[in-house]
Amino acid sequence: MSDIKVLLNESDIPTHWYNVVADMPKPPLPPLAPDGNPVTPEQMLAIFPGPLLEQEMSGERWIPIPEEVRQIYKQWRPTPMFRARRLEQMLGTPAKIYYKYEGVSPAGSHKVNTSVPQAFFNKMVGITRLTTETGAGQWGSSIAFAGQMFGIEVRVYMVKVSYNQKPFRRSMMQTWGAEVFASPTDMTNAGRTALAADANNPGSLGLAISEAVEEAASRKDTNYSLGSVLNHVCLHQTVIGLEAKKQFEKVGDYPDMVFACCGGGSNFAGTAFPFLADKAAGKKVRLVAAEPSSCPSLTKGVYAYDFGDVSGYTPLMKMYTLGHDFMPPSIHAGGLRYHGDSPLVCQLYNEGLIEAVAVPQIATFEAGVQFARAEGIIPAPESCHAIRACIDEALRCKQSGEKKTLFFNLSGHGHFDMASYDKYFAGELVDYDYPEAAVKEALKRLPKIAA
Amino acid sequence: MSDIKVLLNESDIPTHWYNVVADMPKPPLPPLAPDGNPVTPEQMLAIFPGPLLEQEMSGERWIPIPEEVRQIYKQWRPTPMFRARRLEQMLGTPAKIYYKYEGVSPAGSHKVNTSVPQAFFNKMVGITRLTTETGAGQWGSSIAFAGQMFGIEVRVYMVKVSYNQKPFRRSMMQTWGAEVFASPTDMTNAGRTALAADANNPGSLGLAISEAVEEAASRKDTNYSLGSVLNHVCLHQTVIGLEAKKQFEKVGDYPDMVFACCGGGSNFAGTAFPFLADKAAGKKVRLVAAEPSSCPSLTKGVYAYDFGDVSGYTPLMKMYTLGHDFMPPSIHAGGLRYHGDSPLVCQLYNEGLIEAVAVPQIATFEAGVQFARAEGIIPAPESCHAIRACIDEALRCKQSGEKKTLFFNLSGHGHFDMASYDKYFAGELVDYDYPEAAVKEALKRLPKIAA
Repeated sequence: MSDIKVLLNESDIPTHWYNVVADMPKPPLPPLAPDGNPVTPEQMLAIFPGPLLEQEMSGERWIPIPEEVRQIYKQWRPTPMFRARRLEQMLGTPAKIYYKYEGVSPAGSHKVNTSVPQAFFNKMVGITRLTTETGAGQWGSSIAFAGQMFGIEVRVYMVKVSYNQKPFRRSMMQTWGAEVFASPTDMTNAGRTALAADANNPGSLGLAISEAVEEAASRKDTNYSLGSVLNHVCLHQTVIGLEAKKQFEKVGDYPDMVFACCGGGSNFAGTAFPFLADKAAGKKVRLVAAEPSSCPSLTKGVYAYDFGDVSGYTPLMKMYTLGHDFMPPSIHAGGLRYHGDSPLVCQLYNEGLIEAVAVPQIATFEAGVQFARAEGIIPAPESCHAIRACIDEALRCKQSGEKKTLFFNLSGHGHFDMASYDKYFAGELVDYDYPEAAVKEALKRLPKIAA
Repeated sequence: MSDIKVLLNESDIPTHWYNVVADMPKPPLPPLAPDGNPVTPEQMLAIFPGPLLEQEMSGERWIPIPEEVRQIYKQWRPTPMFRARRLEQMLGTPAKIYYKYEGVSPAGSHKVNTSVPQAFFNKMVGITRLTTETGAGQWGSSIAFAGQMFGIEVRVYMVKVSYNQKPFRRSMMQTWGAEVFASPTDMTNAGRTALAADANNPGSLGLAISEAVEEAASRKDTNYSLGSVLNHVCLHQTVIGLEAKKQFEKVGDYPDMVFACCGGGSNFAGTAFPFLADKAAGKKVRLVAAEPSSCPSLTKGVYAYDFGDVSGYTPLMKMYTLGHDFMPPSIHAGGLRYHGDSPLVCQLYNEGLIEAVAVPQIATFEAGVQFARAEGIIPAPESCHAIRACIDEALRCKQSGEKKTLFFNLSGHGHFDMASYDKYFAGELVDYDYPEAAVKEALKRLPKIAA
């Protein structure tokens, strides 16, 4: 009988995060203010702590992980890597399939890899409160957990419609001691303005961001925390790929292709960037971001400076965008409904160092169920995108006879997404056409930068 | 920084289950038919496969685990053991607290440790279908997973009120390909009779058992599968305690006290029995079963022959019972709402080799939330009973200054129990008084055995 898990010891938890900037052909394009000038650190310090800003702008290849953070990482890291032997058999593919499972974390996804250091560095500079926004609650629960670990209060603005329809991640946040409010609230100007216009406003991620940022900017003891897109968030997630490389070394193998789902980009970055370091050193490895075909920023977007949020509060970032006020169709992979992508991911895509593929919703659930029946783990709808892309490649290998080694990151479990699986089984899921007209409209509103 | 996880390799997964019968002072009392004679194997073969019946009656100390079963175990075993350093600090106790975490399994609890071998041994004798009952769905999802692993069809009769109120474990069963029906159904005599009397019958575990057993008894290709109480179920769960002992050996420690929650008894048996082997060999270790104070079979029941189910379909088993038709209060730890206990656990309790403690509902959630805030894992309501008992002992150590080593099994996660946590936070949970009058009434209906 053959082994299926590749386990590491606690001492194998990385001691440093990997900063891909050191290996990029060109330096990353800076975030800009609407006047066209780079945003200054001073402007960012109102809502982010100094150490995180340093990471955001660092060109150093290796950034040390504080021992206090590694100690919390030990609660679930190193995460296991699996050889998907049953899935391979089910597919009848000559390809070898490996996956790393981030769902073993307390909040059930990779998000805690960054929420923990974010809470730690905020604590270090004397911050006692964090605000953030959350949609379905993946990020909110991750930052609630992290706040609890370091004794930092956490206030989460949760999109009202999710607050009412998806109560269980809210309960999870409360279990970890966070305050959770249905956004829009009457506690911020942004919220009050929205409620004055429409007392029944169901909320949106953009509005919840506005509330969280407004509160953080207005209080000295409070900072804001973001779960994806930014450089330091991608940096923290590299523990995934760094561990995976050790695990491949342990079994004497190396992937021909790496797959990860891609919404704001931190999961893909964390999985793929450490392999990109090898690629920079001459190794052959293909890195594939899997995105929804209904929200295909990398595969259909334009490469331009745009706002990170719907309302236009953030600095401008150069990214593949569908337009900052483009409203993606209501797919069940809420974490992938983002109009843009991490600027680092976008720049590397632009330079041809990474690839992207867009997959339709029903096919992702089909892949997720096939995976669950083979491997026993029920994946989050976001993760199903990576599984779909990987299975498609495994099936191509079946046709061609190629014995490729494929690897994907299983970013989270689907325990809080069973209602989506219900809809899949009931045949109620739909595949949305690529909303070309809506994207075209939204792109007309790209910000004009003063030259 | 100190380590907190104690990990084993796949090669450390036990090769044999431990059968406590070999170390019991007296042989176990046999199950009886209502006429007072022991039940014959022939009677049981209608619904159970031969290999499981052999295990049920075996006196051998070690029963080999088939390689096919160990291969599936590898998907989540060995499970991690943790040193609860943050919880110790939070409590300010000089005690050392360790816990083993069974929630990493596909279905999220220890139940799959037995569902997998049960499916395997049924497959071995040519059975192609399994029936079972489930309440909230922990057991149903575990057997659905196991059936999927060996290509066996699974039909689950799920108590109708749970089917409607707790849809997500049902979705989980369907993800693993099981058929799930709201019981009572019109597919069995038991179901039709119940529906004829009351078309709106909400169902009960007793009724669902009747439907599952009736179908299994009436079809040659179909057997019945039970998730607790029986000897072979307790046997399969000993992988928990066997691994824990290796993990203690690895860190050079040994528990003074072992805690596990106890409903039907298999979780407690699986955790404690391997330590009882050491006790039989002269080692000092206390083994404590934690049960709900509203359903305290060990601490308040009478030791007598009684039916295993509400309706009186099963053989009579000697156990601490509150009366087979005693209806426990609706506590949220559904897995602990059982009127009796495993006959093996009961006999050992009767002989003074194990202990029991009863804990009230609200205090268990209090312990669960404290644990989640310290250790990051949100426990199932059942597991909260073991946590409560362990924390109480840790607090006694704080008073006395004793540096005891405490160990408990965290039998499952609470991802599908967040509604119960919500009620706890909303102050809506109640502590039920011990239902003395109801128990007294139920005990009047203990079966009379023909002498």
